[in-house]
Amino acid sequence: MQPSGIVTITTDFGHKGPFVAVMKGVILGRFPAAKIIDLAHDIPAQWPPEAGFWVSRSWQWFPAGSVHLAIVDPGVGTARDILVVECGGHVFMAPDNGLLAQLIDSNNDARVSRLDTDRLELPEPSATFHGRDIFAPVAAGLAAGTYSVGEVAVETADWTPGWIDEPEVSAGRITGIVVTIDAFGNLISNIDNSLVADLSEPVVDIGGHHVPMLRTYGLAKPGDYLALVNSFGVVEVARAEGSAAEGLGCARGAPVVIRERN
Amino acid sequence: MQPSGIVTITTDFGHKGPFVAVMKGVILGRFPAAKIIDLAHDIPAQWPPEAGFWVSRSWQWFPAGSVHLAIVDPGVGTARDILVVECGGHVFMAPDNGLLAQLIDSNNDARVSRLDTDRLELPEPSATFHGRDIFAPVAAGLAAGTYSVGEVAVETADWTPGWIDEPEVSAGRITGIVVTIDAFGNLISNIDNSLVADLSEPVVDIGGHHVPMLRTYGLAKPGDYLALVNSFGVVEVARAEGSAAEGLGCARGAPVVIRERN
Amino acid sequence: MQPSGIVTITTDFGHKGPFVAVMKGVILGRFPAAKIIDLAHDIPAQWPPEAGFWVSRSWQWFPAGSVHLAIVDPGVGTARDILVVECGGHVFMAPDNGLLAQLIDSNNDARVSRLDTDRLELPEPSATFHGRDIFAPVAAGLAAGTYSVGEVAVETADWTPGWIDEPEVSAGRITGIVVTIDAFGNLISNIDNSLVADLSEPVVDIGGHHVPMLRTYGLAKPGDYLALVNSFGVVEVARAEGSAAEGLGCARGAPVVIRERN
Repeated sequence: MQPSGIVTITTDFGHKGPFVAVMKGVILGRFPAAKIIDLAHDIPAQWPPEAGFWVSRSWQWFPAGSVHLAIVDPGVGTARDILVVECGGHVFMAPDNGLLAQLIDSNNDARVSRLDTDRLELPEPSATFHGRDIFAPVAAGLAAGTYSVGEVAVETADWTPGWIDEPEVSAGRITGIVVTIDAFGNLISNIDNSLVADLSEPVVDIGGHHVPMLRTYGLAKPGDYLALVNSFGVVEVARAEGSAAEGLGCARGAPVVIRERN
Repeated sequence: MQPSGIVTITTDFGHKGPFVAVMKGVILGRFPAAKIIDLAHDIPAQWPPEAGFWVSRSWQWFPAGSVHLAIVDPGVGTARDILVVECGGHVFMAPDNGLLAQLIDSNNDARVSRLDTDRLELPEPSATFHGRDIFAPVAAGLAAGTYSVGEVAVETADWTPGWIDEPEVSAGRITGIVVTIDAFGNLISNIDNSLVADLSEPVVDIGGHHVPMLRTYGLAKPGDYLALVNSFGVVEVARAEGSAAEGLGCARGAPVVIRERN
Repeated sequence: MQPSGIVTITTDFGHKGPFVAVMKGVILGRFPAAKIIDLAHDIPAQWPPEAGFWVSRSWQWFPAGSVHLAIVDPGVGTARDILVVECGGHVFMAPDNGLLAQLIDSNNDARVSRLDTDRLELPEPSATFHGRDIFAPVAAGLAAGTYSVGEVAVETADWTPGWIDEPEVSAGRITGIVVTIDAFGNLISNIDNSLVADLSEPVVDIGGHHVPMLRTYGLAKPGDYLALVNSFGVVEVARAEGSAAEGLGCARGAPVVIRERN
């Protein structure tokens, strides 16, 4: 891997307090030229699948050689391992709690390893903040090219599976769920573009509504619901000049069905 | 333009999800030395005037040669153009939806162009996220000095006007509106300092209250309302050790009148 | 001091508007190689002690030679001074309103000075935003090594004391308060690890509950309360897979007592 010097950070820490900042301090202390990007910090507390969804849909937009940290870690300080995944010329680190399962499952070239902290001379980590005490220093070393993944982690064929089922496809119906909601109230599903490509006139059933698929928001009348394949390649339900989440009363986990118009 | 390498980003994306982050990834992929600053992401959804207000009041605090992206874009994916404005040695990009009208109107040297994406070899953009697919790569090229505005955009004398009227001035009364509210609950108006310079003892009428103008917050008694010319050169109404927005029940759009004390 | 080039910023500005961004613009205009880190911006409005708490518990995680700005400044534009504190090879700047008292009290090597803006050729500052007009340019000069603290500030033995009492220790009981609450709803106290080291089986009394001390979150059953020494070296009360703040109905200032189990 030719390092880009970029480290992205995804957490459920929210935007309160210095938790992300001290991770950045540790990274810059070990790798002063690091370029650190906040990917998302609003993951619902201790809900790894949403972090995994965004990481697996976002990394392609960063240059090869980037290191992506994803820390949603209810098991911090217990026996859970830390995974290091190489894929597409990028490196990913997350607790082995299912967070990276979607990335691994959807990339044939993904190589999965377990971090072996015994190979690193890290100060004794705290029991509650491995983001700062393990993830940050290791990310600095990997992003700087100080060591390779193979030098600090051991390849494995075994990891914790994802928490969310892949969408079900049967008889022209695709059934997925709302994975996340953006600041506009758009409901973002786990249904990949490729699953609906064969439908000639797809309709989305959600929250008791039947919503047509359009190309972009501005093609719907204000107040109308629409579905579209969004810029991250998944189906999303929106409301023109409004919030689909509020209007439909839908939250994370709500079922989304896509079918041919009758 | 001598590039500073700085790109600022203003959006209505909020602080949820990886939307701003992937823009940064695209910029750094094309211009690894870019220094990217988040200007504001809390613009109310699809309300371009507030983004325009902050951009037009903030750019002076960045070094010349900076590129300022402002993406509040309800028309993304429809026929709306993208404007590129040069002014004061800085470059600004925004959808042609009125966002940049205030900047253009208040700077005589502003030169307005329309982006011509045919001159650029960009991958096919998504229909819904031009921030990532057009704004970010073009900003990277402009900020790096890879190309000039004239090479990627065509000068124009025609653009969408602003959504908010300039303050009315008549018979010693200036009438404006609340444009935005900060985290302290201070009500920030669109009334420029220069409009009140002639009043000897100005009073601000807002929310049924008559508020005196002072020099700074600490000169009012706790709980008292005060008005002042804020650090961005506009009149602001505050409450000492409290929230004027809550206390006065005022929101964006509320009328603000400044007049001579009787 | 060998500068690291890092400037951290802690404020009560929230995440609205361009207030922090224009500070960054000013810093980069004077010191283009600055690496600027947002430490925390969610300090409750005009409550300096929480900013002081986080700064005094976070700076160790940044490389020596960093400059830390903390701007919670209800007295901006009045006669209050600005302190510059050197400690552990780092530099700290804050209004002289008690914000830095905890840092000074807990570090024997802290050297306290008052900024003398007459020694600097700064543009006339606004009355309401010294973060941008004084703190940012001075931080740029200090972080770049353009001048030393001694060149712009005068040593003093006199400063405003902190707003929060140190924990009381008596007869095996330590009594402190909740200083801040993180995004998980964990209640973070001002009781340092060292104060509880002598207790063999400590119990925390808070909100009418008696909470046992454990090593990490994952060792409690979902829904159970636990206390622990957190990664910043203070006692924290948490609820496994829940929010202690909500569950216990506790806010900032709530009393926290630690004692030997009966």
